[in-house]
Amino acid sequence: MIILKKRMEKYAKPTLIINENIARNNIKTMVAKAKSNNISFEPHFKTHQSKLVGEWFREEGVEAITVSSISMATYFAKNGWNKITIAFPVNFLEINALIELSNSAQLTLLVQSTMVVKKLDSLKNKVDLLIEVDAGYHRSGIAIEQLKEIEEVVKTIKEGKHKFKGFYYHAGTSYEARGEHEIKSVFDDMKREMMLLKNHFKLLKNPHVAPHIAIGDTPICSRAEDLKEFDSIHPGNFVYYDATQIEIGSCNLEQVATFVSCPVVATYKHRNEWVVYGGGVHLSKESLDTATGKIFGLVGVLSTSGLFTPFKDVFVKSLSQEHGIISSKHALPSEINVGDVIYILPIHSCMTVDCMPEAYTLEGTIIAKMAK
Amino acid sequence: MIILKKRMEKYAKPTLIINENIARNNIKTMVAKAKSNNISFEPHFKTHQSKLVGEWFREEGVEAITVSSISMATYFAKNGWNKITIAFPVNFLEINALIELSNSAQLTLLVQSTMVVKKLDSLKNKVDLLIEVDAGYHRSGIAIEQLKEIEEVVKTIKEGKHKFKGFYYHAGTSYEARGEHEIKSVFDDMKREMMLLKNHFKLLKNPHVAPHIAIGDTPICSRAEDLKEFDSIHPGNFVYYDATQIEIGSCNLEQVATFVSCPVVATYKHRNEWVVYGGGVHLSKESLDTATGKIFGLVGVLSTSGLFTPFKDVFVKSLSQEHGIISSKHALPSEINVGDVIYILPIHSCMTVDCMPEAYTLEGTIIAKMAK
Repeated sequence: MIILKKRMEKYAKPTLIINENIARNNIKTMVAKAKSNNISFEPHFKTHQSKLVGEWFREEGVEAITVSSISMATYFAKNGWNKITIAFPVNFLEINALIELSNSAQLTLLVQSTMVVKKLDSLKNKVDLLIEVDAGYHRSGIAIEQLKEIEEVVKTIKEGKHKFKGFYYHAGTSYEARGEHEIKSVFDDMKREMMLLKNHFKLLKNPHVAPHIAIGDTPICSRAEDLKEFDSIHPGNFVYYDATQIEIGSCNLEQVATFVSCPVVATYKHRNEWVVYGGGVHLSKESLDTATGKIFGLVGVLSTSGLFTPFKDVFVKSLSQEHGIISSKHALPSEINVGDVIYILPIHSCMTVDCMPEAYTLEGTIIAKMAK
Repeated sequence: MIILKKRMEKYAKPTLIINENIARNNIKTMVAKAKSNNISFEPHFKTHQSKLVGEWFREEGVEAITVSSISMATYFAKNGWNKITIAFPVNFLEINALIELSNSAQLTLLVQSTMVVKKLDSLKNKVDLLIEVDAGYHRSGIAIEQLKEIEEVVKTIKEGKHKFKGFYYHAGTSYEARGEHEIKSVFDDMKREMMLLKNHFKLLKNPHVAPHIAIGDTPICSRAEDLKEFDSIHPGNFVYYDATQIEIGSCNLEQVATFVSCPVVATYKHRNEWVVYGGGVHLSKESLDTATGKIFGLVGVLSTSGLFTPFKDVFVKSLSQEHGIISSKHALPSEINVGDVIYILPIHSCMTVDCMPEAYTLEGTIIAKMAK
């Protein structure tokens, strides 16, 4: 089993571990896909929130990024990123921070109404605006059926000081897909709708300039091959992947780059359970409904080379604040005892990363992230 | 609506707000209950994790506390607490930190097996040991039916260097109770079983000294009146309470001391929804199954005096990393628009506090907490 070469005292507590090789390969794969489709790759940095991991992207030629808050944009702007999409409705209570940020970075903002567009007139520096489109996920954005409203927003942008860039679409419904066939079905729906939108605004406004179409979501960006008709992709989770992405079919086990090491503190043979030091404050309370039932993580061992081998039919059954209950229908591996360490593959890596104060590579390098 | 007098820039983002008066009253009520029952009150500090809130307890005469990790014990020991129960199975990978801690604080540790008791011989300073008993919650502890195993652990403790203090029991099943009647039923079961245990070990070992019986859990400590037959209570959540405790029936709305202010960033009238800046990274992904369905928080306004008025039939329907979706079956209050702030009463205050970097009182005082 793996022993971090540095900071053993950290390893004694639940510790977030990143397999740098796997993460870098995930980045390379997505860079290659964007390149072969001749589209822009503007990765979402909310998954790692780290300037160090940002450098791994920069080394592959990435120049533009996506974030989910003004704070996160400010953190990455201070670390040398100057083309930033804030993929979250503008929070006007932070207008001062946004004004300052717009002095150092070329910003793309998401808008959802004419009211928001008008309010943005108070922003002195010119920014690019993407209209967020909701094609059925019902989180944020204008419903794609409300074409009149979308037209109204386009018109309001063109009358104002900022630039109408195009449309942003996060296909959140792809998270409900299971397997390549269902992901493709979500993708096909999205593609059809976004192409209708693209052509509608192309013909309506200027036959030579089509609006930019930006899409997010890891499942589609991981599994769809032909992305040529889009203009940019903004996935985030793919850098680490997780149990949800395995379940969806976005990746396989070997592509997951993140694990939480948890000390075993009690074993209960008669009910096939272990208690580990590792709870909701370390992994987040994110769960996944699987054929086996609701689970809070996969469980296994990590080799010194970073290879994760899951224990067969062993899952995180429940989490309280600091306790994790590891359970199986069968006898648990007898080689694991109190004082040993097991590894949990998280349900949702973005949430787990956010819970943990920092991460470590297999070699023990600290991966610091932005302050909360 | 409330405006924090200091640090407006913080208020522009999701902010954790604590009503100090309510929290202090919750503390006073529990102190009075312990006093009237003539038992020891050793509050669990995992809910607030804050030295400042610890002082509110100290001002009410509290001297002994409970925590859920060696790190948390170390933080509070550094802030002047020297009688500490670590209500979590001993993590031997942190033995060095435990040894250091035992130099400055009188520790009570929880044990679940003879193996753990034997391992504790490596701890130079003498500590008190409570055997953790599991009466059906199946998290940690020895099953109460396994009396032979419990006897074995008592014997092993008595043969070793540390002191056998008694038994610790967290009635986690009280969290499944709904209403006073069901809480009382869990309480009665626990009481019967713990008294059997107490008497068994009293008669067996020494008729003049009964083992100490320590109990935790906010629902029972909030609702049961007669606690005289126990020796100490260790609740934590009651200091702030939350939506889960209202649903259980441990408290009423006026006793909840914690809220998260969230800026409204988009409104969708046609589907009775708002999007707020406030997601799983602020509130945690903890949810509650109610008659209305699965919810992630209650929603309302907070007056300058700190009075929370929930919007009728309005709930947090879902959370992603930074987005919160506020939803109702009816039209949402029309006075709330983009740029306003609404307040979310969390499902589980311990988890929400852990998510947030710090909290603020209504007057804007920072409530710092231990570093993660």
